[in-house]
Amino acid sequence: MFKGTSASAGIGIGKAVNVEEAELKIKREAITDPEAEKARFQGAVKQAMEETGILAQDLATKVGEKEAEILNGHLLLLSDPMLTGEIENSITGENVNSEYAVEKVCNTYADMFASMGDELMQQRATDMHDIKTRVQKILMGVSSVDISALPEGSVIVARDLTPSMTAGIDPNKVVGIVTELGGKTSHSAILARALEIPAVVAIEGFLSQVSDGDDVILDGSQGVVIINPEDSLKAEYAEKREAFLKEKKELEQYIGKPTVTKDGTAIELVANIGKPEDVEKVLHYDGEGIGLFRTEFLFMDRTSMPTEDEQFEAYRKVAVAMNGKPVIIRTLDIGGDKEIPYMGLEKDENPFLGYRAIRFCLDRKEDVYKPQLRALLRASAFGNIRIMVPMVTCLEEFREAKALVEELKKELDEKGIAYKKDIQVGIMVETAAASLMADVFAKEVDFFSIGTNDLTQYTMSVDRGNDKVSYLYSPLNPAVLRSIRHVIECGRKEGIMVGMCGEAASDPMIIPLLLAFGLNEFSMSASAILNARKLITGYSTKELQAVAEKAMSYSTVKEVEDYMREFISHS
Amino acid sequence: MFKGTSASAGIGIGKAVNVEEAELKIKREAITDPEAEKARFQGAVKQAMEETGILAQDLATKVGEKEAEILNGHLLLLSDPMLTGEIENSITGENVNSEYAVEKVCNTYADMFASMGDELMQQRATDMHDIKTRVQKILMGVSSVDISALPEGSVIVARDLTPSMTAGIDPNKVVGIVTELGGKTSHSAILARALEIPAVVAIEGFLSQVSDGDDVILDGSQGVVIINPEDSLKAEYAEKREAFLKEKKELEQYIGKPTVTKDGTAIELVANIGKPEDVEKVLHYDGEGIGLFRTEFLFMDRTSMPTEDEQFEAYRKVAVAMNGKPVIIRTLDIGGDKEIPYMGLEKDENPFLGYRAIRFCLDRKEDVYKPQLRALLRASAFGNIRIMVPMVTCLEEFREAKALVEELKKELDEKGIAYKKDIQVGIMVETAAASLMADVFAKEVDFFSIGTNDLTQYTMSVDRGNDKVSYLYSPLNPAVLRSIRHVIECGRKEGIMVGMCGEAASDPMIIPLLLAFGLNEFSMSASAILNARKLITGYSTKELQAVAEKAMSYSTVKEVEDYMREFISHS
Repeated sequence: MFKGTSASAGIGIGKAVNVEEAELKIKREAITDPEAEKARFQGAVKQAMEETGILAQDLATKVGEKEAEILNGHLLLLSDPMLTGEIENSITGENVNSEYAVEKVCNTYADMFASMGDELMQQRATDMHDIKTRVQKILMGVSSVDISALPEGSVIVARDLTPSMTAGIDPNKVVGIVTELGGKTSHSAILARALEIPAVVAIEGFLSQVSDGDDVILDGSQGVVIINPEDSLKAEYAEKREAFLKEKKELEQYIGKPTVTKDGTAIELVANIGKPEDVEKVLHYDGEGIGLFRTEFLFMDRTSMPTEDEQFEAYRKVAVAMNGKPVIIRTLDIGGDKEIPYMGLEKDENPFLGYRAIRFCLDRKEDVYKPQLRALLRASAFGNIRIMVPMVTCLEEFREAKALVEELKKELDEKGIAYKKDIQVGIMVETAAASLMADVFAKEVDFFSIGTNDLTQYTMSVDRGNDKVSYLYSPLNPAVLRSIRHVIECGRKEGIMVGMCGEAASDPMIIPLLLAFGLNEFSMSASAILNARKLITGYSTKELQAVAEKAMSYSTVKEVEDYMREFISHS
Repeated sequence: MFKGTSASAGIGIGKAVNVEEAELKIKREAITDPEAEKARFQGAVKQAMEETGILAQDLATKVGEKEAEILNGHLLLLSDPMLTGEIENSITGENVNSEYAVEKVCNTYADMFASMGDELMQQRATDMHDIKTRVQKILMGVSSVDISALPEGSVIVARDLTPSMTAGIDPNKVVGIVTELGGKTSHSAILARALEIPAVVAIEGFLSQVSDGDDVILDGSQGVVIINPEDSLKAEYAEKREAFLKEKKELEQYIGKPTVTKDGTAIELVANIGKPEDVEKVLHYDGEGIGLFRTEFLFMDRTSMPTEDEQFEAYRKVAVAMNGKPVIIRTLDIGGDKEIPYMGLEKDENPFLGYRAIRFCLDRKEDVYKPQLRALLRASAFGNIRIMVPMVTCLEEFREAKALVEELKKELDEKGIAYKKDIQVGIMVETAAASLMADVFAKEVDFFSIGTNDLTQYTMSVDRGNDKVSYLYSPLNPAVLRSIRHVIECGRKEGIMVGMCGEAASDPMIIPLLLAFGLNEFSMSASAILNARKLITGYSTKELQAVAEKAMSYSTVKEVEDYMREFISHS
């Protein structure tokens, strides 16, 4: 039994097929005609781009536009004169064969990306290896493993799934994916989720433990893989698989149903998104709006500030796609946990207590905050956009942001540019200070959205990314629950909407409490929406009052968890 | 007018005297008789040690044992075979003159210390330069500036004050000290405070702006220095100086007086200390106990864990010196903001939200926490020791610590070792979680001590060490005040003592509010005690109720500050 990272939910039962490519042996060879060699390289690049283009189209039809983007990224790399130019220089300057020049230059870049440490850059390294191998295979006349020809019931086993492999996967034949590398957000994981194939990633040394044809069970929800299980275990997992599929089918019934509790409380069930493309999935799962659109993606992974127009386009796209449904867009929530040289952001000693989010934006009004707010206002003419200010700790911060919005409204009025006149401006409640002052904030802001991830972190003084202390991180901690209840009460008293966009909003253990407290809006990842609707429509908020009262009477997180687990198992 | 760091309070008015040593010109010279050169070096070291020993004795008599320790540290360095051995190797191995060998080796160490970044290591670098210069001067026959011969009314001006210089200072002649380097805790600052000479440190480039004989005014309380002021300004500061001295005199009347408000509420006015030696000053300023004894000093700046006996000695010393008065000792509050290799502590990504204090101690029961608790219990037989647990966020942490104390009590009983049977165990309230759960904690702990420095930090989600966001750090922020008031109310309701050991406890702007809230114990640096006693005995807690009510009605820190400033100016 192996433990990895769960990358795509569901149970897969089948036979292992190792699709790892045989390693290419690249030799350095002296060449005599560098110009001819350069032409050979250019021919291979051309062919690689054609093949990649076809794969990308395949993927777009089979999985979705968003997934095809990975391969479009490869096309950009293959046509990047920096990369190809350097390879050509190596060929002509050192008189070496194309295979070797490709190997050397691509490895240099891949190593550089890999050494940068974060997952995004890790992915760039994988991309670089992927295109390297594709070009080399063409140069050497080696053909790839044909994944589309795998037999039914195959569990794909690989070091890492390259997008070129993934494009060939037939979800009717492949019942599971297990890789040694990758993480929750690696391409393999994204693609597996898009194809709805159970997947477990990041099991070190797995390939040396499994042989082709081995019986394999994988539980993509738990991140567990078993090789050659006993029959009893196989039967157990077959049952689990049936249950999982049945539940999935059942959840689909909730598409199109209103989110109303048994005693008639209407709840807004909305989604968190990180990019305009995510809207597709929100609509698929029948999200009633966007509760949190993170705008950081516009600023990451680039070398200069996005323009106001670029931002406007992104916001407008989401507003239009959501067609009048509420779209809460959070202004830039970026800070010193990442170095972003073009923004002058340096690593802080305690980044989570540092120069970030609204603190950074108010310090950079002209070049950062005003362009974003102007883009948001302009986009608000195209849909139901609301502006949300993150990491607020004191009233002055909100007032300053609000004043900027009013100033920009006047500016747009003068220029005759349209925007939503009554656009709402609210705050994330995610600091202890904002929670303590919720009654005061509720009188001035248009809405609250409780960010339970950070609120838990700040309340418990714990960096949940730190393995040594993450055991203290739980939104079910009585201190955190008190804070949440207090914020909801304060918001309700002033008649403003109170939502939640942290992970707690989709947690079956916490949903009953949030309903009892009177939360209006639950925002979560799109794939969690139907399950939340099923749960919410099954409860009566009145009946939950006693549950909440009991839960809040406990002094420790363990007591609360035990009680809620007990309650859920009987409801 | 120059702005620096205030290092020692008071006003100094006098004439500038630059005591910076002329820079020694060190040349590399080839030598012919390495053994003779080595002997010359050893002779210089011997002489330097003799001189340093005399200086240390001088300093001990004039200023205090603690201050002399700096020079005793130099003696250790001078006798360190690592250092002298390396210099001797350089002399004999490279055939170079002693001056050059000393220069090279000492600079290498100084640079190494300086590059480590923290203030302590910075100090080591200064120490290294200090002994380097002393040895070189002896080798070169250069005599030092004789500071003891300065005329009356001198303002000493230097890049940094070396302990060797400081030992010669006559407080009857020197009226002020200004340096380019250093910080609040540098030797210059510590010595200036001990000698009660006004001092401002850390004014970059000051030496190039001032000439010997210039008129200089310095305000050590505000960190301000003025060169060649106009007569009107001079008169103004002369008045300020008189007022300062008069107030100091006045405060001395409060020695021996009880700390009772006008309407009869008795307050415990106690001190924060960092080392057993600090007790001297607490007794001098008539502290009624120790409200916070930080035990980190025992663990810092060394290469192995302090033994239980070493700890016992330190705790016992304080308990005995305080002679039955309460001594609250905080268990180890150390964490990933410093790397302490021998404890296996590595730098965390967000150290203030990381593996530290009670989290660390409970994870290291056998080798860290039990020896400390055992030492505390044993020392409690010698005085009124109370145990305080830092950075508590949940009840389980306190219960676990308390259970350890009970376990160790049994162990001591079995061995027949004495301890205070009814020793109190309380907590620091410094996280948002502890504040939110104060009612629950109050039922189980023996006392609260509100750590306003961290409580403010965690409530406002702000690292006060981060210049870019420290503007958000204020215990007068309404959110922080609400949290403080809540903790006091919860403690009072259960009848336990509620103290405060953060800087707010000595802040004249906050003291009236704390009295109104019902705080029992105020703990602060010893030198602030008499002023706090003066303030507290001048107030009636009943009359302050209306002030607190008004202050708590404001929504922003600015309104609270304005109101309290106004109130104080009229009281």
